[in-house]
Amino acid sequence: MHDKLQSFIDEHKVIIEESLSQIMSELDAPESLKSSMAYSINAGGKRIRPLLVLATLEDLKVNCSDALKVACAVELIHTYSLIHDDLPSMDDDDFRRGSLTNHKVYGEAVAILAGDGLQALAFELLTKLTDTPPQLAIELIGLLSKASGAEGMVGGQILDIEGERKQLSLIELENVHINKTGALLSFCVEAGAVLATIPIEDKERLMIYAKNIGLAFQIQDDILDVTASTEELGKTAGSDETSEKMTYPALLGLEKAKERLGEHHRIARESLEFLNNDESLLGHLADYIVERRY
Amino acid sequence: MHDKLQSFIDEHKVIIEESLSQIMSELDAPESLKSSMAYSINAGGKRIRPLLVLATLEDLKVNCSDALKVACAVELIHTYSLIHDDLPSMDDDDFRRGSLTNHKVYGEAVAILAGDGLQALAFELLTKLTDTPPQLAIELIGLLSKASGAEGMVGGQILDIEGERKQLSLIELENVHINKTGALLSFCVEAGAVLATIPIEDKERLMIYAKNIGLAFQIQDDILDVTASTEELGKTAGSDETSEKMTYPALLGLEKAKERLGEHHRIARESLEFLNNDESLLGHLADYIVERRY
Repeated sequence: MHDKLQSFIDEHKVIIEESLSQIMSELDAPESLKSSMAYSINAGGKRIRPLLVLATLEDLKVNCSDALKVACAVELIHTYSLIHDDLPSMDDDDFRRGSLTNHKVYGEAVAILAGDGLQALAFELLTKLTDTPPQLAIELIGLLSKASGAEGMVGGQILDIEGERKQLSLIELENVHINKTGALLSFCVEAGAVLATIPIEDKERLMIYAKNIGLAFQIQDDILDVTASTEELGKTAGSDETSEKMTYPALLGLEKAKERLGEHHRIARESLEFLNNDESLLGHLADYIVERRY
Repeated sequence: MHDKLQSFIDEHKVIIEESLSQIMSELDAPESLKSSMAYSINAGGKRIRPLLVLATLEDLKVNCSDALKVACAVELIHTYSLIHDDLPSMDDDDFRRGSLTNHKVYGEAVAILAGDGLQALAFELLTKLTDTPPQLAIELIGLLSKASGAEGMVGGQILDIEGERKQLSLIELENVHINKTGALLSFCVEAGAVLATIPIEDKERLMIYAKNIGLAFQIQDDILDVTASTEELGKTAGSDETSEKMTYPALLGLEKAKERLGEHHRIARESLEFLNNDESLLGHLADYIVERRY
């Protein structure tokens, strides 16, 4: 990873996690619920979504005191989706990032409610922006609800569940990813653009960037599952094939999947040209996504 | 029920249900998810929450074109909470209002996601108000997220689950109801007050009204379970005692519970005096709550 991106992440990940902890500690809720919500919020992770919000504003050279709240709101949504995805009736996962999943610690009922509470809290947080015109705050709430709801992330999760039972076409596979993970990633970049109030055509360029790094990330994930060692991955290599999960290499073959990865990287890079900055964080992030080995 | 209240309900319930159907039909989501969300939204019910929003504005003699959207947003939240409450890991109910519960028809995974999608949709709907100043729309979103989240309804559901395992005091029992059902009912009345932009002291009077009818409703529910016949109730009478559910009659005895019901009714009625209207819908609603026999 490029040094500039690495130091940006090192610096801001701490700030994001402190802010998330603060938000959880201020919550006036029954102890078990609060503990369950905080457990998953404080469980670590790459914090890629909140970092994407902050990196977008950094690249746009806009300082916005509300950015951290927006960044945390996205992470609350992402965390609720992980808790619900891990449930026995969904992916039925006992572990996430090496720790027990929420329902394994608190039970299913509390885990479902913790997810529900985190979703509500995300929207509440967006009503507390202090330096953003109300009309823009409403725009952000509208964008986040759409990106995370039935027309975005939740819809993508359904497509993913249904896709497990059948052979998907390339368009269908892409549609799963565009909704399940892409919609929320796009929100992060769009939120930065909204807070920075940049021209609509530049916002659209950033949306193209977001869509393409989202797909690139997924393709690289699939490729690494085939090519990397279990040691490098930190999880069992080849597990996609074992679980008969539909992947890009399975659908296109490894070479075509790599070509497609390169294509998404190129488009993402090109869409950032308007920034006139060869050292943009978003550009380095796109590079990192295709170059990473785990 | 008083004629005036009855005709208000008859007229507006249809409008609310048409609007909810319209909202569902416009949703651009995967078919199974959309169908699952619409199944529970169109499953009927008293629509007491949206009616409360509209009745509050009617009593305040304020005509607000956005009221119906706010009313529907509350019903989306209420419906998501019912879907999640019915899940096997929660109340494990197979039937609601004589129909199969959502997860019995669509499976647990889809039911959880349908609830998640309905919550997001409620907040999205509140970003689409057209005649309300943005600052008030944000206030409404903040109030709804708080009322429905960990500090309100979701927190109350946790207290209810935990309360099943122990003997509750009167204060603890009240705290369950104030959060689990009261917070959202209070939001309905408060939302009407916010849309009508009435003075703060009148808003506080309406909040006292809301709190007291919420508790009165619950006490009457508990009393009817003891005193009414199974035929009158449309569900098994005495089921609370069989299930060892903590109730007001169990805690206070029947007579004291009835006294308490009367007290909440009196306070609710008194808090409406500022309306200077003996025929207010909210007043008739308070009367109906204590007089109903099923």
